[in-house]
Amino acid sequence: MKIITVSREFGSGGRELGKRLADAFGFSYYDKEIITEIAKKTELDENYVSSVVENGVSAFPVHIGQTFAYIPYTYQPSVDVLVAQQKIITEIGKKGNCVIIGRSANSILDKFSPFNIFVYASEKSKLARCRQNARESEILSDKELIRKMRGIDRNRLRTSALISERKWGDKASYDLMINTSDVEIKSIIQPLKEYIEKYFENFPEK
Amino acid sequence: MKIITVSREFGSGGRELGKRLADAFGFSYYDKEIITEIAKKTELDENYVSSVVENGVSAFPVHIGQTFAYIPYTYQPSVDVLVAQQKIITEIGKKGNCVIIGRSANSILDKFSPFNIFVYASEKSKLARCRQNARESEILSDKELIRKMRGIDRNRLRTSALISERKWGDKASYDLMINTSDVEIKSIIQPLKEYIEKYFENFPEK
Repeated sequence: MKIITVSREFGSGGRELGKRLADAFGFSYYDKEIITEIAKKTELDENYVSSVVENGVSAFPVHIGQTFAYIPYTYQPSVDVLVAQQKIITEIGKKGNCVIIGRSANSILDKFSPFNIFVYASEKSKLARCRQNARESEILSDKELIRKMRGIDRNRLRTSALISERKWGDKASYDLMINTSDVEIKSIIQPLKEYIEKYFENFPEK
Repeated sequence: MKIITVSREFGSGGRELGKRLADAFGFSYYDKEIITEIAKKTELDENYVSSVVENGVSAFPVHIGQTFAYIPYTYQPSVDVLVAQQKIITEIGKKGNCVIIGRSANSILDKFSPFNIFVYASEKSKLARCRQNARESEILSDKELIRKMRGIDRNRLRTSALISERKWGDKASYDLMINTSDVEIKSIIQPLKEYIEKYFENFPEK
């Protein structure tokens, strides 16, 4: 049973790397699919789920089913979301042969000995990648985009701290940390795949 | 011109990884050779040079040539050593096609766009590796060995801060960070070599 998790800085191309790696291995790929599943399970709105999963505990108004509802301060649907996340990611992990993007999967699936990747890059490189990919970035200045990038990564750090002992972005949490600043992601997939295969050979029982 | 630098935590197997990588590429390998060269250039004792390069500024008594000499407080041979180190590593870098272990080579050779690796591992794994390799470790308790390991890494961080803007152990300073905890180093050399070759293809002008 082989599991690869990809954590990443916003704009580092981690998602592309994960998708290409899944294709190269012939593995299932899980990214936003996880959010959809959590929303189904908890009957909460996808946007809200996404916000909890990406930003940690949140207090903003929530759609439940089709209804707008202001959540009283004492109610913590975010906990439900994080529990559902844990459950769904564990189910995915049990099936194996998959690549999972973000969502503290490295920590949640620890007992399955996944191969854990962290993808990062220089701010300059991340900025360039954002400009290439996103429509939204067109209306943001460099300064605004950098602030947004940093904010998203800060939230990832914070959320992972809620549910995980493995610190987001800390090398001890990963098997390999890849700097994509000067790298064409497509070009490194094949050697990366071979590298990971060697890792899995060390755990033949799984 | 291809340069690979390998920084490493003590006990992580970084030296083995670097040596095997040099062999796989057919590159020159520089490790303690650098210390010998600095000692020749500065006419300082090799043990002293080694201590400065590994531990930063030092105030202990120095052999100069064959003579013991207590160095006055104001005299700073360590600066000479660090300048000589910079010079020698630059000379090595200019020749190219080499693997250099430690000694802030990633920072000193920045303008040559080396491929910079950081090798690390869990404390448990480093402890096991130390026990396998070193005779000295046999007489140290686990606690003492861990203290020694941490001390050496602390010194590496401190020394690199003296001569480099690139922080030792910080992911921004490296192209790839490799966790050797669950890895047989020999087995990953071939895919690692291919990965690095892809990196060098991005800089064909060098």
